[in-house]
Amino acid sequence: MHQEAITADQLTPSGQLRHLLHLRGLDRRIILDMLERAQSYVRPLDQVPARDDCLAGQTVANLFFEASTRTRASFELAAKRMSADVLNLDVNMSSRKKGESVLDTIYTLQAMGVGIFVIRDASAGIPALIATRVEPHINILNAGESDVSHPTQGLLDILTIRQHKGRLDNLTITIIGDIAHSRVARSLTEGLAILGDNDIRLVAPPGLEPDPALYPGTRITDDVDAAIETADVIVTLRIQKERIKEKSGLMTNHEYLKAYGLTAKRLERARPDAIVMHPGPMNRDVEIEGSVADGPQSVITQQVTNGLAVRMAILATIARR
Amino acid sequence: MHQEAITADQLTPSGQLRHLLHLRGLDRRIILDMLERAQSYVRPLDQVPARDDCLAGQTVANLFFEASTRTRASFELAAKRMSADVLNLDVNMSSRKKGESVLDTIYTLQAMGVGIFVIRDASAGIPALIATRVEPHINILNAGESDVSHPTQGLLDILTIRQHKGRLDNLTITIIGDIAHSRVARSLTEGLAILGDNDIRLVAPPGLEPDPALYPGTRITDDVDAAIETADVIVTLRIQKERIKEKSGLMTNHEYLKAYGLTAKRLERARPDAIVMHPGPMNRDVEIEGSVADGPQSVITQQVTNGLAVRMAILATIARR
Amino acid sequence: MHQEAITADQLTPSGQLRHLLHLRGLDRRIILDMLERAQSYVRPLDQVPARDDCLAGQTVANLFFEASTRTRASFELAAKRMSADVLNLDVNMSSRKKGESVLDTIYTLQAMGVGIFVIRDASAGIPALIATRVEPHINILNAGESDVSHPTQGLLDILTIRQHKGRLDNLTITIIGDIAHSRVARSLTEGLAILGDNDIRLVAPPGLEPDPALYPGTRITDDVDAAIETADVIVTLRIQKERIKEKSGLMTNHEYLKAYGLTAKRLERARPDAIVMHPGPMNRDVEIEGSVADGPQSVITQQVTNGLAVRMAILATIARR
Repeated sequence: MHQEAITADQLTPSGQLRHLLHLRGLDRRIILDMLERAQSYVRPLDQVPARDDCLAGQTVANLFFEASTRTRASFELAAKRMSADVLNLDVNMSSRKKGESVLDTIYTLQAMGVGIFVIRDASAGIPALIATRVEPHINILNAGESDVSHPTQGLLDILTIRQHKGRLDNLTITIIGDIAHSRVARSLTEGLAILGDNDIRLVAPPGLEPDPALYPGTRITDDVDAAIETADVIVTLRIQKERIKEKSGLMTNHEYLKAYGLTAKRLERARPDAIVMHPGPMNRDVEIEGSVADGPQSVITQQVTNGLAVRMAILATIARR
Repeated sequence: MHQEAITADQLTPSGQLRHLLHLRGLDRRIILDMLERAQSYVRPLDQVPARDDCLAGQTVANLFFEASTRTRASFELAAKRMSADVLNLDVNMSSRKKGESVLDTIYTLQAMGVGIFVIRDASAGIPALIATRVEPHINILNAGESDVSHPTQGLLDILTIRQHKGRLDNLTITIIGDIAHSRVARSLTEGLAILGDNDIRLVAPPGLEPDPALYPGTRITDDVDAAIETADVIVTLRIQKERIKEKSGLMTNHEYLKAYGLTAKRLERARPDAIVMHPGPMNRDVEIEGSVADGPQSVITQQVTNGLAVRMAILATIARR
Repeated sequence: MHQEAITADQLTPSGQLRHLLHLRGLDRRIILDMLERAQSYVRPLDQVPARDDCLAGQTVANLFFEASTRTRASFELAAKRMSADVLNLDVNMSSRKKGESVLDTIYTLQAMGVGIFVIRDASAGIPALIATRVEPHINILNAGESDVSHPTQGLLDILTIRQHKGRLDNLTITIIGDIAHSRVARSLTEGLAILGDNDIRLVAPPGLEPDPALYPGTRITDDVDAAIETADVIVTLRIQKERIKEKSGLMTNHEYLKAYGLTAKRLERARPDAIVMHPGPMNRDVEIEGSVADGPQSVITQQVTNGLAVRMAILATIARR
């Protein structure tokens, strides 16, 4: 099923956020408001987590057609801390007739009073398809969609950058890895394009470069050392080990680390105050050296904390309608 | 293990509902009270779902020995909206010594303070077996038992019929499909027999007809067109695709649709205000044409909404003891 | 990965309980306080279970790397009845690089505001490894660790003994089964050694005897009849059926029952008021005769009730810090 062409309006008729399917085309104001609210939910980890009763009595369903421990946990805790009832459904479906079965599942849950659906799917177009078919009071949140979109990841990355750099403009941001298949890179660059004018450098091994049309205003290269030069922010992406073999012949994990991984040595080329990000889960000593992941420039666990805050903020935003 | 012969009293010594194992033999008053209460829990879907604190502090365990996304979700949300703590246990057990292991699991959960067990099982007799062994304060709710019983489905079907027809008497109700293996047909006809005098027609392909002794007062036929004639209510049942092959040789899905499915053309034989029901999940264009499932006479998603209300009502009924 | 050598301090710098990894070395006062508090959470099963709001707003993650329906359910309900948000994660990980992946999972959840981790793992050393790496405000509770430790089981066994015997001193306690692989036997004897001077007899079939260095002050034997003589408490352990074959050649379940199982006949050798315990799940008529498990001297389901109370007490103890 190829449904990437389906588009759904993310806003209500009165211009409020209704669905979050992708960051592309979102109003700058909406994004900044969500970042602001997310920031208000960030607490020191040794304190009791922030709570809100925005969703008291409402039901959120986490509908994960693709397995994910981390993102599922983050959305589950976000909804619980907003006082919602949470329904977790890990659903395996064969690809044939999938769209139809997914919709019947959604209609069923909608009829049970589920008001907010968090959807993760390995194929493109499912969240938008659902958004076009549900009742007007329903909200759809995209929790990761094929290679196409992962908007909450984009927002948490942007929040993390702003916390450290104090701005979202005039930054040099280098993203390294399998850009061709990265919904993380897509959503981050979509969001940054709305918020400021930044020098975005995309580094991909040969064969894993993205379609340039999907990344307007960025520079695509395979020269990792040059791309790190003077970077303010370095985002390393998880590489699927099968892809290394497929695309790079007999390159071992160690050879990949040497060629494209973020090693301590390579990091020296960036600005001394550059931050290191990774969406997780990491392959240590493949795309990122363990000492860098745990080093002083790493903000990787802070990204996780921000992820929960961002998801709470999105729930609050759509609940306010 | 063949335990269908086990029977358990569904009432307390003082005549209140304690377990819900089957509708057969239930007092008309108890059923009508539950329908009344269920109706009070139905809300427009764009409003916050109904809640009650009947079960505050109590624990409900959903013990599903047979997988079910929809029924599990419905019972889980019903219990949460009644303010209970909910424990979900999907348990796979080999059939050998199953009864014994099930009972040890129940005793263990009972000792943890679980007060209400929602049981789904692919073999007959397990809910009644459990009901005869637990402590007097424990309630057992049958969430689907082999080919034998699915009382909450029966109640939600009856509630849906009453909402549309305003009565539960003097109706023509046609049930089509694999009646021989249908706990849905069993519970619906058991419930209807208590509530009124109706013309119930059971349509099954050859080889899938039920034992007439289990369906007193009904008409069993394989002439689907005649059975639909002037029907007020048409219930289509899910057909397991393997059964089509087994019983009907090389009949394809499309041939089944033509022979026994509820097509738009066939529906014209019913009354113009006839309602179309299906317990879900549907095989679209096998037992029911997609356009009928989505058409103006379909009340299929309303059945789902009623299912949640009925399950809340049952929880309220047993909690009141 | 062999990490049994890793040790972690279970107390805070000020001497309060922080982690519960094993009973060995715990202060007598801490154990007695937990037993006291656990006792206060025990309610008749036909009453609403005890609740506490000690953990309101806090998040407990049940991280089970080894499957367990019973212990998981017990910890889940304990946390919910203490008003915590609960996150259940059943994680399968290949053994290679496991320590590293486990830690990254922990760091991720810690960054989401999880404050208490309940860990079950089939390999030794993981709970202690985690305890040495987490932030100072985090608590680790061991829910079963290889053959090494199962401290909440030890505490619930001790609570059960005290309820029946009124003391934890001067008792004859016989433990029968695969002692060599029993974390239950380890934790119970560790706890008893702290609390009193008891005659502890360990009965194992040949080949399943424990390392005597791990069980100081106990008697190890394979003469089950002599060991039961005048016992106050008899603990039967689950035997893995594969082990019977492996160690005892062609011994059948029935032969095992005759040779080492707790039969009604054998039980007559104990004191008339001796209690019979089993950590569950039981193999009826293998290590314990069904009639004994269900008989008047059995306190097996009471152990389950005490297990929940003990887990609530531990949560309360670490929450009070």
